[in-house]
Amino acid sequence: MLEPLANVGRDPATGGYVRDAWSDADMELREWFAGEAARRGLDLREDRNGNLWAWWGDPSRRPGVVTGSHLDSVRQGGAYDGPLGVVSAFAALDILKSRGTSPRTPVGIVCFTDEEGARFGVPCMGSRLLTGAIEPERALALTDDDGDTLAEVMTRAGRKAHELGRDPETRATIGAFVELHVEQGRALVEYDRPVGVASAIWPHGRWRFDFRGRADHAGTTRLADRDDPMLPLARMVLAARTAAERRGIVATVGKVRVSPGNANAVPGLVTAWLDARGPAELDVRDLVAELAGGADVREESWTPVVDFDPVLRDRLARVAGGDTPAPILPTGAGHDAGILAAAGVPTGMLFVRNPTGVSHSPDEHAEQADCEAGVVALADVLEDLCR
Amino acid sequence: MLEPLANVGRDPATGGYVRDAWSDADMELREWFAGEAARRGLDLREDRNGNLWAWWGDPSRRPGVVTGSHLDSVRQGGAYDGPLGVVSAFAALDILKSRGTSPRTPVGIVCFTDEEGARFGVPCMGSRLLTGAIEPERALALTDDDGDTLAEVMTRAGRKAHELGRDPETRATIGAFVELHVEQGRALVEYDRPVGVASAIWPHGRWRFDFRGRADHAGTTRLADRDDPMLPLARMVLAARTAAERRGIVATVGKVRVSPGNANAVPGLVTAWLDARGPAELDVRDLVAELAGGADVREESWTPVVDFDPVLRDRLARVAGGDTPAPILPTGAGHDAGILAAAGVPTGMLFVRNPTGVSHSPDEHAEQADCEAGVVALADVLEDLCR
Repeated sequence: MLEPLANVGRDPATGGYVRDAWSDADMELREWFAGEAARRGLDLREDRNGNLWAWWGDPSRRPGVVTGSHLDSVRQGGAYDGPLGVVSAFAALDILKSRGTSPRTPVGIVCFTDEEGARFGVPCMGSRLLTGAIEPERALALTDDDGDTLAEVMTRAGRKAHELGRDPETRATIGAFVELHVEQGRALVEYDRPVGVASAIWPHGRWRFDFRGRADHAGTTRLADRDDPMLPLARMVLAARTAAERRGIVATVGKVRVSPGNANAVPGLVTAWLDARGPAELDVRDLVAELAGGADVREESWTPVVDFDPVLRDRLARVAGGDTPAPILPTGAGHDAGILAAAGVPTGMLFVRNPTGVSHSPDEHAEQADCEAGVVALADVLEDLCR
Repeated sequence: MLEPLANVGRDPATGGYVRDAWSDADMELREWFAGEAARRGLDLREDRNGNLWAWWGDPSRRPGVVTGSHLDSVRQGGAYDGPLGVVSAFAALDILKSRGTSPRTPVGIVCFTDEEGARFGVPCMGSRLLTGAIEPERALALTDDDGDTLAEVMTRAGRKAHELGRDPETRATIGAFVELHVEQGRALVEYDRPVGVASAIWPHGRWRFDFRGRADHAGTTRLADRDDPMLPLARMVLAARTAAERRGIVATVGKVRVSPGNANAVPGLVTAWLDARGPAELDVRDLVAELAGGADVREESWTPVVDFDPVLRDRLARVAGGDTPAPILPTGAGHDAGILAAAGVPTGMLFVRNPTGVSHSPDEHAEQADCEAGVVALADVLEDLCR
């Protein structure tokens, strides 16, 4: 199902995908989305924040039922996280058409921009800007690894950076949102079911730790004279694991920058990003506070717990499950669906089974039959909601 | 004295220098060297390994006395490490001419290529290739951060990569070598002397540690299911400090690469470079062996202890010291002088006082008066050796 996108942004050395927002690969994916919309006669529009919308019916008359996901990826990510939800959306719409469905409610397919935050550090940028969950001034000033701001990058891509921000007109077109996503754990394997429904997204956040020391010569500076920021980084990494274990939550240091980064110099600055999540907000906040000593800590993103709309959740489980309601699962992963739910949009999610549970890795996988079951479940859900 | 080079490769944000071998900045520095040689009517040549030579007199008739250093820098380095030795060489030659010296022995000024190894990981590349201390096949296959090999980079710079390697003709032109260098410690401050002479270079090496794990989602993978290579890295960093303290040597992790490097993913691979040095080779080797568990370890460079020629050393101390012989100091820093000494060239080094001892940092400094004292000492030494 993901064949048409298989070579876009793929690193041939690893098999992983690198699809940063507004990169060449992202532009190619956006073109692909526009082509799929055109092929089906859908109305394509890009909102002020760079999110793409393909409409069947006119949502200015009546808010629509929206499905979709994102096309960007983490660096060296897998093929499914994001694209499966967009490809499945088009396929589900094809099923509705082949069934002769003539929906009273418009149906929309969305591709949210920069869901992973791989380039600028803040995930779900497109949906955050749309709903006002991030100030455009802050977003525009974020920089990528080359030191380019989001404002510069979007301007180079021909977008109007000064128009970014809360977009009530677009928000008003979304009557409900259902995002289909590959599962990022193994709960559905244990349930022995191809499709599940989300109950809640754990509260989660990302913090930047700056450890400052003094750059020095690695051969001539006595140990006693050093102020080496690698040491507090190392202590933080180990303490984060212990503190997370103690609280039954997860904490990860997945990105580190060492400056100047010479093998023969004591570093002057080490920057590390801590990702922490868990069922209870207080535990996550406590862990960050416990680790903060010795570093300048800045919160780059924070998303409170999101409980999806319980009525919609139960309806999805009933419709998507066939004879037996689909299992209902919490998740530790953030999604645009979580941002919309927090902004008051009736929102739900469908998960497609992942045999290994591995995600954010080239090994991410879902079986073809399960993906097809996901498309059918999504078509059933859309048909039910559009009635 | 370093004014003409002050803006080449300087990062305006930090004041530090970034002068990777074969970068635009390096090319500009090489042009500067050629201009200084031409201005003085010296014969300029570049050897097969990219080292630059400016000759006063013809070394094909009789081996010369060579001085000089390098112009590349560590990333975010200071102004003095390398360039002080080259600038002082030209200034010392000017003094010899102004004194009306007519040397019987040719005098050469050298700029060795890629002394710091900032780009390809192996320091003293130019002198190692010249003397055969590294195989050209290994050197040419080394890659920079963009994945480009030295072969590709040198070819793009218009050099003949296939001609790299041991160069007995150039080696035969070097009768003796004296390198002037900013001190990288505070011994001369304690001696209250502007200029010192090197006794020995500690044995030192660089090792690459690859910690392999499994890339995974930072929100949905249980701690117990993770194989996170950040944890063994952190343990190695802390163990390196303890092990070095115990042996009275130094060990540094100054460069780390995390792959894929997403804030919201458990990394699949963490690579760290360990630099270790000390008075005794056995201690350094023991430390690396002690840390090697849990990682693939590869030795990227190793330089045994270098004792400089004792006759030349005492002669330098007498001539450079004025009324009282200059102090004689060991050093933990590697230099091209060490590579030449190990290859049998009579070699010595002069150090110029560094008030803070800080090096490999924008804060590296030497007073103008001390730099001038260094030039006069170098001129006296050259005059003495050319007689």
